[in-house]
Amino acid sequence: MRVAYLGPAGTFGEEAARRYAPAAELIACPSHAAVAKAVDSGGADLGVMAIENSINGSVAETLDILIHETTLQIQSELLVPIEHSLVAKPGAEIDGVSVIYSHTQALGQCREFLEGHFPSARLEAALSTAQAVELAVAHEGAAAIANARAATLYGAEVLTPAIQDRPNNATRFVIIGGGQPGPSGHDRTSIAFQFDDDRAGLLTDAMTELSSRGINCTKMESRPTRATFGEYIFLVDFEGHAQDRACASALIALRAMTSELKIFGSYPRAAEG
Amino acid sequence: MRVAYLGPAGTFGEEAARRYAPAAELIACPSHAAVAKAVDSGGADLGVMAIENSINGSVAETLDILIHETTLQIQSELLVPIEHSLVAKPGAEIDGVSVIYSHTQALGQCREFLEGHFPSARLEAALSTAQAVELAVAHEGAAAIANARAATLYGAEVLTPAIQDRPNNATRFVIIGGGQPGPSGHDRTSIAFQFDDDRAGLLTDAMTELSSRGINCTKMESRPTRATFGEYIFLVDFEGHAQDRACASALIALRAMTSELKIFGSYPRAAEG
Repeated sequence: MRVAYLGPAGTFGEEAARRYAPAAELIACPSHAAVAKAVDSGGADLGVMAIENSINGSVAETLDILIHETTLQIQSELLVPIEHSLVAKPGAEIDGVSVIYSHTQALGQCREFLEGHFPSARLEAALSTAQAVELAVAHEGAAAIANARAATLYGAEVLTPAIQDRPNNATRFVIIGGGQPGPSGHDRTSIAFQFDDDRAGLLTDAMTELSSRGINCTKMESRPTRATFGEYIFLVDFEGHAQDRACASALIALRAMTSELKIFGSYPRAAEG
Repeated sequence: MRVAYLGPAGTFGEEAARRYAPAAELIACPSHAAVAKAVDSGGADLGVMAIENSINGSVAETLDILIHETTLQIQSELLVPIEHSLVAKPGAEIDGVSVIYSHTQALGQCREFLEGHFPSARLEAALSTAQAVELAVAHEGAAAIANARAATLYGAEVLTPAIQDRPNNATRFVIIGGGQPGPSGHDRTSIAFQFDDDRAGLLTDAMTELSSRGINCTKMESRPTRATFGEYIFLVDFEGHAQDRACASALIALRAMTSELKIFGSYPRAAEG
C-alpha cells in the first residue's frame, strides 16, 4: 500500500501516516493539494491530511480541498499528540541560540516558552518543521522547533523536549481514499452545504433536521464560498453513518433545502473525538 | 489619535490603519496580541486587526484574542482589497528570479501564478510580506510577494502587479477600542458562546433564538475551547445592534442557555458585508 502525506519526512504528517499504516510505502508530497491529487490519479492508495489542531483549530487548506478539489471520501481519522522540541546541530549550546526557525504554527504553539527562555532570539519562518531543522543545522547559533524524529533525520539533536505551551496539543488527521467504509456502530459523518439565499433561519432549519432526529452535531464551521464576501459554505460533523436510518433521512431533507450538499464521508470515530 | 496595527510598515494591516484613520499616529506591533495589549494598556487609542479574508477565511489568532485575551469592543469594520505584486530590487530581471519570499498566506493566494510563471523557483516563508521584501532586496536572484507600498518603503520595485489568483481578494479588518458605539441603523453584532454539555440540539436552540426573532445570522464559526478536543466555542455574527429590541431579547435568551456568552461588539457594517 502507498500512502501520500505532506512532507518532507520528519513532519507530523509523516508521523500520522506511519501510525496509520506502519508497513505502507510513504510518499512525501509538497502540499495537501498534492496529497489529494496523488490519490485521485492513482499514484497513491490513501492520503493523510491534517484537518484540525486542538489549539489552532481547523486546517483551512484541507477543508477547501475537501470542498472544492476532490471527490475522495474520508476513510478514517486519527489523533496524533503534537510534541515540539527545541533542536540544533550536535554540540550546539542552548546559551548560544540567537535565531530560531520553525513553521509559523509551531512558533505560535511555543510562544510562551520562546518569550520566557529566548526573549531576544530572532524568530524565522520555515515552510515546514522539517525544513526548519535543515536551516538550523546549516546556520551557526541557530535552533529549530520540530519533533524528535526530524532531529534524527536531519542530523540535529534535541536541546529541550516538550516545549509546547499546552500539554494537550493534538492534531486530527483524516485518511482519504476511493472507498466508502460501511457502518461500524461508532461513526462520524462530515458534510458541507450551502444555500442559494441568506434568509434568516435557513441554517437553523438545517441544524434542526439533525437535532430533531436526535443526531449529535460534533462540529460546525463555515468557509467563504470565494465568490462573494459574506457568503459561506457550512461544514458540519455529526455522529452516525450516512447509511444509518436517522442520518439517511436527515441527509435527504438537507439535500432538498440546500443548493449544494457534499458528503465528505462516514468513518469510524477516533477514541477521543 | 494613536492606532496600533500588525507591522512592520508596508503590511496590509498598515494599509487598513491608514484608510481608517489617515491622520492618526500609527504604531507598529509585532503580533495581533500586541495590538490588543497596546490598546488595553493605553499605549494606543484604537487597534486594527485582520479578522477574515475572502479566500482564506477567518484569522484564527484574532478570533482567539477576542475570545480569550481582551474585553475591548469592536468599534467598526472595513474591507481592504488585497493586491499582491511581485517585487524585487531595482534592476532585477524577471528571468533571473530563482527564489521567492513571502508570508505563507500570500504564497497561497498566488499559487496558480507561481506554478504558471515560476515552476522551478524555490518558495521561502517570511514572517510578513514586508519582511519578504527586505529578504528579496538582500539576496541575489530573489523576489518577494508584497503590496506596492512595501516595495517603495524597502527599496524594491514592482516587477508584476496584481498577481493574486482571484480578483475579489479582500480582507475584513476590525477596529477595537474601549468605546461602545450606539446604534447606526445598519449594524452588525459579533458574539461568542459555549455550552456546558454537548447534547444534540443545543446549538440549534441557540440559533433559533435569533432566527425566530427575524435576526439574520451573517456568520457562524467554531473555535476549539483549548481544554478538551471536540469542545467548541461558537462565534456568531448577526445583523442588528445589541440595543435593538429584538437583539437585546435574543441576547437575554442566549445568556440563559449558554455557560458563557461574550459580546465582541455592535458596530456599523461595512458596505459589502
